[in-house]
Amino acid sequence: MSEYHPTKISKVKRAHERGHYDHETVHAVLDSSPFCHVAYVIDGQPYTTPTLKWRVGSTLFWHGSSASKMLRNQKSGARVCLTVTHFDGYVMARSPFHHSANYRSAMAFGTAHSIDDQAEKEAALHVMMEQLFAGRWDDVRSNTDQELKATTVLCMEIEEAAAKIRTGGPIDDEEDYDLGCWAGVIPIVATFGTPIDDDRLASGIEYPDYLKGLPGTSL
Amino acid sequence: MSEYHPTKISKVKRAHERGHYDHETVHAVLDSSPFCHVAYVIDGQPYTTPTLKWRVGSTLFWHGSSASKMLRNQKSGARVCLTVTHFDGYVMARSPFHHSANYRSAMAFGTAHSIDDQAEKEAALHVMMEQLFAGRWDDVRSNTDQELKATTVLCMEIEEAAAKIRTGGPIDDEEDYDLGCWAGVIPIVATFGTPIDDDRLASGIEYPDYLKGLPGTSL
Repeated sequence: MSEYHPTKISKVKRAHERGHYDHETVHAVLDSSPFCHVAYVIDGQPYTTPTLKWRVGSTLFWHGSSASKMLRNQKSGARVCLTVTHFDGYVMARSPFHHSANYRSAMAFGTAHSIDDQAEKEAALHVMMEQLFAGRWDDVRSNTDQELKATTVLCMEIEEAAAKIRTGGPIDDEEDYDLGCWAGVIPIVATFGTPIDDDRLASGIEYPDYLKGLPGTSL
Repeated sequence: MSEYHPTKISKVKRAHERGHYDHETVHAVLDSSPFCHVAYVIDGQPYTTPTLKWRVGSTLFWHGSSASKMLRNQKSGARVCLTVTHFDGYVMARSPFHHSANYRSAMAFGTAHSIDDQAEKEAALHVMMEQLFAGRWDDVRSNTDQELKATTVLCMEIEEAAAKIRTGGPIDDEEDYDLGCWAGVIPIVATFGTPIDDDRLASGIEYPDYLKGLPGTSL
């Protein structure tokens, strides 16, 4: 089984039994949401910024305006950490101490750089849209050269990565199971709501089949 | 109106019209989810770690095991960035370039330190539980001294902060409104699922009224 080699940076120390390094588990958590937080450092100050991401093999991609402070600061070899997290529920125990949360989280570490070749950039954006909304790319107009120039696409090879996952109910101290309080899990579930037509949508245009059953409903 | 003073660090540059600095807006976004990502730096490597947070005035708190690498590295004055994010929907435009996301995000910057006095620590944990699950603290057993020692609570004064918010439908180029593709917003909604009783819950214990109608359903 292929896996990321746990290092001083990526090794899960606290609750280490929740740590996973195999590609299958790490990639599954990374892929389970289109959104992430990216950490980076400017002049010693850490930042963590939410953004959309996508993955091909062991390469992660994110993008935005070429005017973005985050992207301008990352594009020439910045060290970054990209984290995808799902909070899946509150774990309600019989003591404050054993309250917890169920979650799936993956942290990936690497060095960011920009994709400067316009054809490669467009290919990466195409992959993003096909992964998110298969069929959308062909339904909308193409990018102009100017739009491509105004878009920065960053990528990083995953050098190290780990997933940390907690599932299941509370683990109480043995003597607490006789207490009279309720205990269990309150799940948190993310879903898609009913699509909202644009105010200027021409009459007769319906919500397309290719946007039904989108992946990534669990955010 | 009280507000955080925008600086080189916190000022929203890209899409600056989406930036907010007033306490009311920033605190509302910070409070709208119990979860956040905290960024910090160890040996030049940035990390962003998901955790639970709470707020009293302009002080943010987070906590965990005293064995946590993150907390041990932050507790003595580390610079941190704490970000709360909601992805509220996909914004589907008529060109790839104008696709976007609706979101609410707040970034807060400051210096972390630990609360070492045991009584202050317990008071902070009490506030957390009352904000999340009012009534729970009195329904479960108390913390032991050993449990309090095994818990690290960190806090930071918010030195700088900004919220960034996008709402509404796509903004397309004028000439694209005649294209025949669907455009609009696909909302993303987080809700609580049906509570799951612990496997070892004694018979006759029901889900308590004080846990019904929890705040923070929008994650």
